[in-house]
Amino acid sequence: MTGRNQANQIAASRMAESRTRLLDVAAAGDVVPGMAPNLILTSGPTMPYDAYRGGQRRALVYGALYEGLAGDHRDADEKLRSGKIKVAGCHDHSCVGSVAGIYTASMPVFVIENVTYGNRAYCNFYEGESRQRLNYAVYNDEVRRQLRHIEEVIAPVVGEAVRRAGGISLTPIMTRALHMGDELHSRNTAATMLFARELFPHLLTLADERAEAVREVVNFLAESDYFFLRLSMGSAKATADAVGDIPHSSVVTAMSVWCEGTAIRVSGTGSAWHHGPFPVVAARLFEGYTEADIEWIGGESIITETVGLGGFAQAAAFALQRYQGGNPAAMVALNEAMYDITIAEHPQFKIPFLQYRGVPVGIDAVEVARSGVTPVLDVGLAGCDGGQIGAGTVRAPAECFEAAARALGEMADDAGVGSSQL
Amino acid sequence: MTGRNQANQIAASRMAESRTRLLDVAAAGDVVPGMAPNLILTSGPTMPYDAYRGGQRRALVYGALYEGLAGDHRDADEKLRSGKIKVAGCHDHSCVGSVAGIYTASMPVFVIENVTYGNRAYCNFYEGESRQRLNYAVYNDEVRRQLRHIEEVIAPVVGEAVRRAGGISLTPIMTRALHMGDELHSRNTAATMLFARELFPHLLTLADERAEAVREVVNFLAESDYFFLRLSMGSAKATADAVGDIPHSSVVTAMSVWCEGTAIRVSGTGSAWHHGPFPVVAARLFEGYTEADIEWIGGESIITETVGLGGFAQAAAFALQRYQGGNPAAMVALNEAMYDITIAEHPQFKIPFLQYRGVPVGIDAVEVARSGVTPVLDVGLAGCDGGQIGAGTVRAPAECFEAAARALGEMADDAGVGSSQL
Repeated sequence: MTGRNQANQIAASRMAESRTRLLDVAAAGDVVPGMAPNLILTSGPTMPYDAYRGGQRRALVYGALYEGLAGDHRDADEKLRSGKIKVAGCHDHSCVGSVAGIYTASMPVFVIENVTYGNRAYCNFYEGESRQRLNYAVYNDEVRRQLRHIEEVIAPVVGEAVRRAGGISLTPIMTRALHMGDELHSRNTAATMLFARELFPHLLTLADERAEAVREVVNFLAESDYFFLRLSMGSAKATADAVGDIPHSSVVTAMSVWCEGTAIRVSGTGSAWHHGPFPVVAARLFEGYTEADIEWIGGESIITETVGLGGFAQAAAFALQRYQGGNPAAMVALNEAMYDITIAEHPQFKIPFLQYRGVPVGIDAVEVARSGVTPVLDVGLAGCDGGQIGAGTVRAPAECFEAAARALGEMADDAGVGSSQL
Repeated sequence: MTGRNQANQIAASRMAESRTRLLDVAAAGDVVPGMAPNLILTSGPTMPYDAYRGGQRRALVYGALYEGLAGDHRDADEKLRSGKIKVAGCHDHSCVGSVAGIYTASMPVFVIENVTYGNRAYCNFYEGESRQRLNYAVYNDEVRRQLRHIEEVIAPVVGEAVRRAGGISLTPIMTRALHMGDELHSRNTAATMLFARELFPHLLTLADERAEAVREVVNFLAESDYFFLRLSMGSAKATADAVGDIPHSSVVTAMSVWCEGTAIRVSGTGSAWHHGPFPVVAARLFEGYTEADIEWIGGESIITETVGLGGFAQAAAFALQRYQGGNPAAMVALNEAMYDITIAEHPQFKIPFLQYRGVPVGIDAVEVARSGVTPVLDVGLAGCDGGQIGAGTVRAPAECFEAAARALGEMADDAGVGSSQL
């Protein structure tokens, strides 16, 4: 027990001490470790292609088509089956996937450094405000054109501005956004504006040579309240990866949904995944949809909750009611419950409504298993027919944490509520 | 009573229905009604120069010096005494004064239209983040240079961008800012960014011809979290002025602090002022200052409270704790109390924490006098030696509302707590 407690203190304080910085924008194939021209990354543990189904499987096919690795749907499917096109989990390549989480080699990614510990993480770009997006397993001419526009117009200009800025520190932006109604998962409105404000002076210096592209970037930033989410995710991944392998620690370092369920990593078991069923939903669906329309096609944006943001900071973002339902009293209660299953409080990321209490950081998987208090996650939801159909809070399934606790050999030590059910 | 109730319904609904738009930026002398080259506007009812003292009197002298109406302090004082330089209250010229509220003819002002009712209001520019500012009764080379910089560089470029935009609607920006932690009096961080976002595409089109000035505007907007306050004040003035003269109405149309006390207007008595003592302070002073250091040198930014913002929307802005003290529970209680003394709820301006309840609009002076529940105001505070020394919530003095109720002939009808003290 003492060994675990000490390890957890180290793990949580490494998370709390991490400061992140956007260094560059580059093609995934040029910077993501182990990325290859014929490799497609997707949400969830690395699995053989045949393990994927439904929307997530279609999304892999769409990725192959977008990258030009196959001529049509059938060709892509065959090459994916035969291994000519390979598949891997985002987390195994220092990336995190939004929903289906498709990365191909030509896609631009943010290069984010944990300046405290030196490790880097990557995240691809937000596709825009349409409900029809590749990460929601939709692919058509409009989706393809938009992805190409981001690759050829938006990302190069943003990248050049970031380089001219000499990089942009993300921690101060995120700190401030929490005072402006963002929880940095399902709400990134303020962070996007704060980030744009950092870019503007450098975009101005580009206005001469690339007037039209700069104008498009300015418009895209103004229209895309979710733009910063990918920076929040990349920052969270760079933070969590600094805690990747601390012996005996039960601090959660990744949570991932894929088409077969939920899986988590804890620091003490390194890159091993501990599996469970799908999250439990309490969502607000867009008009015309019911819970039966939800399809799980992946999702790793919950890396934000892993480091104390999103559902763990929802008392900073009461405006989320409009998007995902709920009410302030319930949001505060959910947020406060997260302190019961975490190790530390963040010294920078603070919640005004909780009198500037630091966000709860370092989920203790053993404590989740023992108490049955599961992490609350702010997520977007995909429909069976593709596209986003809603958003809301879900709970990570207890089974993942129970499995992690067993793997750490810690369940036998606890006589609490959770373990008696195992 | 019925006459008053009906009149108040009309007054409050006119406030709630008002939508405002920034039309232009121009020199006060060119657009402000009744402005003259030798006229200086200041906070409070229009008074003879000899009625002003302390910091507010110094601020009038400084205004004369800035405008080049006098060679030195003594010369300015003599010309002000003799009437060669004239003085008037901002409110009598469709303006509102921040703290001492000095307007001279050459100063740039925002031209704001109430698009619902057609009337216009004006507000001059935020001077920047320094605690040493003319509106806080400080004048030296640095203050003068900064005012000149705003007049010659910042305002012309902002004005040209506003014209190229064809004007900028303020109501949607303010609506959104309330979801992002602003109450639009002591906190305008989000509104400033939202406004800058509207301006930026047009600033880009100016970058060729006026590169350096555009760069300075972008920097000024990025550094000035209070930039939008003057737009919020102008919008509030344009809103309140649409309710200027409704017979029998006890709805407050202006609240103003000057160096001799507080004064309010109510719709039913038009431009008459009803006087009382200084506000009651519960402030958080900057380090090194005590309440004895406070000097009242004017203040009309409480026009925002007059239309349901600032202290009347503080449950939208928990981050204000850092700036002005207090705690969330007290802020919510204060905010909720304001519903007891107001007539309507705003259909656009809503508070997420109060489950998107509209802000309380239309202060009923008779109800304030009857109940003793006085309006809560978020204000900045000036020191005896000039400069800002703190910020916090203050309460408008009950005496103003009792005087207004007497003037309306309504006190005799009420047997409540307030009237028994008269």
